[in-house]
Amino acid sequence: MTPHKPSLDNIVAILARTPASLSALLEGLPQALVTVTEGGNTWSPYDVIGHLIYGERVNWIPRARHILAGETRPFDPFDRTAQFTQSQGKELSELLKTFEMLRRENLATLAGMNLTDTDFFRVGHHPELGEVTLGQLLATWAVHDLDHLGQIARTLAKAHTSAVGPWGRFLSILKDRQHEPASNGAGSNKA
Amino acid sequence: MTPHKPSLDNIVAILARTPASLSALLEGLPQALVTVTEGGNTWSPYDVIGHLIYGERVNWIPRARHILAGETRPFDPFDRTAQFTQSQGKELSELLKTFEMLRRENLATLAGMNLTDTDFFRVGHHPELGEVTLGQLLATWAVHDLDHLGQIARTLAKAHTSAVGPWGRFLSILKDRQHEPASNGAGSNKA
Repeated sequence: MTPHKPSLDNIVAILARTPASLSALLEGLPQALVTVTEGGNTWSPYDVIGHLIYGERVNWIPRARHILAGETRPFDPFDRTAQFTQSQGKELSELLKTFEMLRRENLATLAGMNLTDTDFFRVGHHPELGEVTLGQLLATWAVHDLDHLGQIARTLAKAHTSAVGPWGRFLSILKDRQHEPASNGAGSNKA
Repeated sequence: MTPHKPSLDNIVAILARTPASLSALLEGLPQALVTVTEGGNTWSPYDVIGHLIYGERVNWIPRARHILAGETRPFDPFDRTAQFTQSQGKELSELLKTFEMLRRENLATLAGMNLTDTDFFRVGHHPELGEVTLGQLLATWAVHDLDHLGQIARTLAKAHTSAVGPWGRFLSILKDRQHEPASNGAGSNKA
């Protein structure tokens, strides 16, 4: 499939909005909901925010720079469980603020790259996926946000599975990702 | 299954947060993303907000009152496509404000009901599901919000399916609800 140039405006519009959307959803939520999971090794809303912070620090912008620098070695692999040590002892509200700040800085960095149409087709090497383009990396950054927003909605919903009684039949979110392997923390969302 | 009393605090915490979370996500988003769908008869973010507004008007609080009044006739059925006429000609930002206002009013009405523990087990009759309790209705109200928040995240994500290229393998949200019948607008979320 020939990569096409994604709309940077659309991608940035999503990236700029997810931190405030997540803060509005999670700030001040009762602790029982902040730490609830879908069972097994799945992640709580608290874990997800730590994961998003770690991605702002070591994944998206470093990989964009790696591509723009013309590096031929693969990206460094991304540690998908770093948040379990990095978030330790921190309050959710502190994590939400950190995520908003890092995202704002990273979007300023992205704007400062003054990407040309050609840049979107520059190629990097993903350790598992092989050749990927800068445009695909940026689109993935936004979809990765949305995947985790959806995960948080699903996790909070599933906390109420027994409470909804017969209505469970009508609420599809309660049945989403029921067959995920329990060992896969992020609901198989990796990047 | 014996219904259990859900945590009203948790339910209200979610209900109070979704309007601001949706506004933060959608307000000012490029129009192409506001009106995008998952294909077939699925709903756009714009359609979903109209549906949530209609629910605030005719579904949740009227059904709670119906139960508390001891009505034995079933609830009125809920029109799941009302937003296609009700939202006509309205801007998304107007719909988002209307949803926030109606939700605030409805939560004030709910607080004014001063529900007792016994009230949560009072029974109403759903036209399709049969006996349901007030507690189940209130939990369903919150889960219904989350189902539609997840739907919006999924819809915005799927708009970037081709843009992410090889990363699609890792982004599970792009594969969620792929086998839904196309005739089912809300991704089989009804109430």
